[in-house]
Amino acid sequence: MSRPDPAQAASAVSTGQPAAKPIRFNAFAMACAGHQSPGLWRHPADRSHEYVKLDYWLDLARLLERGLFDGLFLADVTGVYDVHNGSPAAALRGGVQVPLDDPMLLVPAMATVTKHLGFGVTASTSYEQPALFARRMTTLDHITEGRVGWNIVTSYLDSAARNVGQQKQTSHDERYDQADDFLAAVYKLWETSWDDDAVRHDRAAGVYADPDKVHAVAHDGRWFRVPGIHLSEPSVQRTPVLFQAGTSPRGLSFAGNHAECVFLIAPTQAALARQVADVRAAVARAGRRPDSVRIYALATVITGATDAEADAKHADYRGYADIDASLALLSGWTGVDFGRVPLDATIEYLDTDAGRTALASFSKADPSRVWTVREAAEFIAIGGRGPVIVGGPRKVADQLQDWVASTGIDGFNLAYAVAPGSWADVVEHVVPELQRRGAYATSYADGPLRQRLFGHARLAPDHAGGRLRDAVRAARRAAALHPESEPELESQ
Amino acid sequence: MSRPDPAQAASAVSTGQPAAKPIRFNAFAMACAGHQSPGLWRHPADRSHEYVKLDYWLDLARLLERGLFDGLFLADVTGVYDVHNGSPAAALRGGVQVPLDDPMLLVPAMATVTKHLGFGVTASTSYEQPALFARRMTTLDHITEGRVGWNIVTSYLDSAARNVGQQKQTSHDERYDQADDFLAAVYKLWETSWDDDAVRHDRAAGVYADPDKVHAVAHDGRWFRVPGIHLSEPSVQRTPVLFQAGTSPRGLSFAGNHAECVFLIAPTQAALARQVADVRAAVARAGRRPDSVRIYALATVITGATDAEADAKHADYRGYADIDASLALLSGWTGVDFGRVPLDATIEYLDTDAGRTALASFSKADPSRVWTVREAAEFIAIGGRGPVIVGGPRKVADQLQDWVASTGIDGFNLAYAVAPGSWADVVEHVVPELQRRGAYATSYADGPLRQRLFGHARLAPDHAGGRLRDAVRAARRAAALHPESEPELESQ
Repeated sequence: MSRPDPAQAASAVSTGQPAAKPIRFNAFAMACAGHQSPGLWRHPADRSHEYVKLDYWLDLARLLERGLFDGLFLADVTGVYDVHNGSPAAALRGGVQVPLDDPMLLVPAMATVTKHLGFGVTASTSYEQPALFARRMTTLDHITEGRVGWNIVTSYLDSAARNVGQQKQTSHDERYDQADDFLAAVYKLWETSWDDDAVRHDRAAGVYADPDKVHAVAHDGRWFRVPGIHLSEPSVQRTPVLFQAGTSPRGLSFAGNHAECVFLIAPTQAALARQVADVRAAVARAGRRPDSVRIYALATVITGATDAEADAKHADYRGYADIDASLALLSGWTGVDFGRVPLDATIEYLDTDAGRTALASFSKADPSRVWTVREAAEFIAIGGRGPVIVGGPRKVADQLQDWVASTGIDGFNLAYAVAPGSWADVVEHVVPELQRRGAYATSYADGPLRQRLFGHARLAPDHAGGRLRDAVRAARRAAALHPESEPELESQ
Repeated sequence: MSRPDPAQAASAVSTGQPAAKPIRFNAFAMACAGHQSPGLWRHPADRSHEYVKLDYWLDLARLLERGLFDGLFLADVTGVYDVHNGSPAAALRGGVQVPLDDPMLLVPAMATVTKHLGFGVTASTSYEQPALFARRMTTLDHITEGRVGWNIVTSYLDSAARNVGQQKQTSHDERYDQADDFLAAVYKLWETSWDDDAVRHDRAAGVYADPDKVHAVAHDGRWFRVPGIHLSEPSVQRTPVLFQAGTSPRGLSFAGNHAECVFLIAPTQAALARQVADVRAAVARAGRRPDSVRIYALATVITGATDAEADAKHADYRGYADIDASLALLSGWTGVDFGRVPLDATIEYLDTDAGRTALASFSKADPSRVWTVREAAEFIAIGGRGPVIVGGPRKVADQLQDWVASTGIDGFNLAYAVAPGSWADVVEHVVPELQRRGAYATSYADGPLRQRLFGHARLAPDHAGGRLRDAVRAARRAAALHPESEPELESQ
């Protein structure tokens, strides 16, 4: 971690004082109302129910680009939160991530009103077909000119599995094995099917693409078979910037291989620092530089012109917390039905493996403290399982810098209490203060999203996808020298 | 067909002469170069290779809306044309619908620069999951405010099936059985899962959606199981406007039940008139008014200020025809490898069922004529299997009106010889001439796409989806009166 990072160095700004570590922001949103703040849609200032309107997203994209955010990170689930009381009723009544639209289709619209903002789209390796999905992402990368990221998830709701015709989800670790297979298939499509110079568009010669430079990928995995070519020509990034959020042992090993950006959720600095260390260790175990991933932590900032104004907002927002809706969310996240647990029950009450896992993030946060169900629900009612950072510009900037310094993260996925107001407040009050401190970019760097984040537009050579790409290329070069031998790697 | 049609009557304009039947235009395009005119991408005026750029599509959408087109109809395949010589080489070299992007993701961008233009998106019932697909279409219908259509296809390329892990396609008729099952699932999601007043967004009561008005669809079909609720709240059209293009006996029976707009392809008026009669008979057999479908025929218009200018363009374009590329396209469409057939062979040479089917559209077109393979390839080199209509404004308008009068179609899906030039020429020269004749709209009607086409925003009561919706509603009303009985229809 001692090597200078060109992308970070480039965005540090001379301020007369030692340049601070620059902080990066994504907005964390979802194509629904509420998202991480169940109940807050009832606040008069909240506009998140306008998620079905184009203008809501266009306005948001313009706002975030004005605030020099790295990107808009769009969460998704493909099922409903129906663990609470065994029914979707609480989720529907509370507007808990339902009704819900498809996030991917919002990106092309937002691309028309922005030039730099990145877009992280959540999609599940459990319910997509690699070939069709790969074409979707390439299309997005084409029309955004390289501003697309993919948040790789394996899904956690049984209701999602049922609605695609499965009885229930496959097991947690097996979902990650399937995800590895999915990734191998899409790396081959994105990175190895079309050579950089395959598309010639040579009007005189009558050659659109050179067939010798377009390769069938011959992927034959346990879950996925993709024998043919990628239908789409290469985009500037080829593989979208890869986001991942798993913190289980299996999820960490997956992140070590595949993640370029990691999204972490922890309620305290101590818990977050442990997660950061786990991620960087997993990256190192995969043979990559530990600092070759950007880590964003979930946080919700409530700010205003002064500390008093921010505190008043926070108090106001807290009045809109919805305990039932929070429990519907928590039940879906954990698979534990909190509708059947008394509100004053403590973690110990849930004397099952699932129950202990369910509240692990709370007990880890502060092992000395016993959380009741009500306390947990109140905690997540604003900003989910991440911290809520409240104050005027200086106080918030102090806290954000403290979180970065104490935990080793690179930035934040900022959830909203009210949308788009929470982000507008950050852009108005916090961004300028961080810029004054030399701790926030003052302009966008050029190039596609990966270039801006890491200094290179394509996957790094030590990344799983980059290694696969380079091995296939080497095999093809060898085969060209010795044409009698087939390039074996293509059929791996 | 004698009942006056309110949507058509509304757009007829007084011109001093008897009002002519209004003609409707869609543009017929695809997220690739060339599309229906293999080889024409080599023409200096052609911009279709810019399909990877956002501006190409934004410019096109603005042009079509200026020309008062009903919509942009986006074709798609999810495989490559690899029947010709058993290889994708000819398709790649000739730019024959490959490389190819995803059409659905272009729509949200084009929606940002238009207010009225409709969008017909092709998607296959063979490779999508109903629940995920239904959410995508609802999202599109939300953000376009009801301007979305779905061109239902069952796919015809084995290469597409292989790339989603299947050995080969299921058989033709079985694909339609699967499509019926798919449609039943998505109708239930779109039409019956959420009552119109289910979303309350009632801040005071704290009710986002009323759980009693959101219903699990309990679809349990031979191919698809969708037990749960639709994740998305209703859009203005609920079900997108349904396009279909099948002309086989099984395809016609499917169209009779499901199609609201039908897209036909025939090289002559006589062949087209027979297809139109077949479609309207199939619609009648399904218990619907024969004129309750809008029929668009494929055509390519080459026009200019004068006949001479148009003729010169046509001669120029013909010089860019690419026989190999045409044969790659024809081989993919028919499943017959025309790479292995001499160019001067006639239909009789192909003495197999597949061969006869392959060229049936040509022999049907003019039974007295014997087509050679070369003649067929030359025919489809501009505008695929549809007619090419060449002339100045008056000559083209005469011919278009003649096609409409002789065949009973409602309008045309206009392919391009060069893009976007062919459409720009139509907007500049042909639309004003048709408007002078009272045979083309002079402004967009209000409302969502289905409203503009048919006078109602939702599926008609005699349509398969409308019948299913109304039956479910009736069963729910009955169940509400007699709460002890379950609404049986929901689990059909």
